[in-house]
Amino acid sequence: MDIQVKIGLRIKELRKAKGLSQEQLALKAEIDRTYMASVENGKRNVAVVNVEKIIGALGENFESFFKGFDKEQ
Amino acid sequence: MDIQVKIGLRIKELRKAKGLSQEQLALKAEIDRTYMASVENGKRNVAVVNVEKIIGALGENFESFFKGFDKEQ
Repeated sequence: MDIQVKIGLRIKELRKAKGLSQEQLALKAEIDRTYMASVENGKRNVAVVNVEKIIGALGENFESFFKGFDKEQ
Repeated sequence: MDIQVKIGLRIKELRKAKGLSQEQLALKAEIDRTYMASVENGKRNVAVVNVEKIIGALGENFESFFKGFDKEQ
């Protein structure tokens, strides 16, 4: 699966697990809501600075965010 | 530490552990050599598609690349 799509799915999975709406997550991460939507939809080749913002807003860190990541289909 | 710098240092550490030159890694990753140098030097807000290429060329995956990442200073 495309890396952009995998990252988007992982963000969505964690966001839902935390009970956050896309808009709430975007606000916490200080990222534009439409940009966040396109990241979740796998439409963005998101850069690490924004990945860090999103991971932080999800209450995760890089290690926990990517744990098991490569096994997912 | 800045996320760009942390990623660059991690790439450098793994590259050296594999005995690869910056040029060899750039070739394997199919990334321009000067771009690779700037990524290692923490000068690039590198996007996930390129992170994936570099991680693959290092023989790592996302989980192994980011293991212990957040504890490093």
